[in-house]
Amino acid sequence: MVKLIALYKQPEDKEAFDEHYKNVHTPITKKIPGLRKMEVTRIVGSPTGDSKYYLLCEMYYDDHESLKKAMKTEESKASGKDLMSFAGNLVTMMVGEEVE
Amino acid sequence: MVKLIALYKQPEDKEAFDEHYKNVHTPITKKIPGLRKMEVTRIVGSPTGDSKYYLLCEMYYDDHESLKKAMKTEESKASGKDLMSFAGNLVTMMVGEEVE
Repeated sequence: MVKLIALYKQPEDKEAFDEHYKNVHTPITKKIPGLRKMEVTRIVGSPTGDSKYYLLCEMYYDDHESLKKAMKTEESKASGKDLMSFAGNLVTMMVGEEVE
Repeated sequence: MVKLIALYKQPEDKEAFDEHYKNVHTPITKKIPGLRKMEVTRIVGSPTGDSKYYLLCEMYYDDHESLKKAMKTEESKASGKDLMSFAGNLVTMMVGEEVE
């Protein structure tokens, strides 16, 4: 499968971030057509101490074609607009392919 | 579950990286006691073009205790030593918890 990956740095206000992420951003994002699965990992540190990262979200699509189609939908545009509103300066987006 | 995450930046020599990663680093890492699952994602870009990242590897453990124990083993030390030898300047390590 193909993954759209969002890696977030530590927000200044974690409580506000969590609240918006859970109650606003996740419901908007889950409406995107073609999204098969969404896996969220809370980063709690690194093997040597702290991490500058806070959250990793992996969104699975069947293939690149499905992801491309999804990104053109109104639902995806709404999710992207919301993302920029609360985490535009924190997030790094990647597109990946599962190996094996 | 708990994840040990390795995020690699683009290597200069992709062929040499791939060869070492697949044939040397992965077999060493898979020997680490307590490792339940290893998921590798090849980063192929971002929604807006290229990405500075190349590979994401997620290593699953039952819990923080299991991960801590694992990291004290000879197998883990061998994997860490090998990692530093071919990707010390490329890798960012994180520890995360699955949400939900």
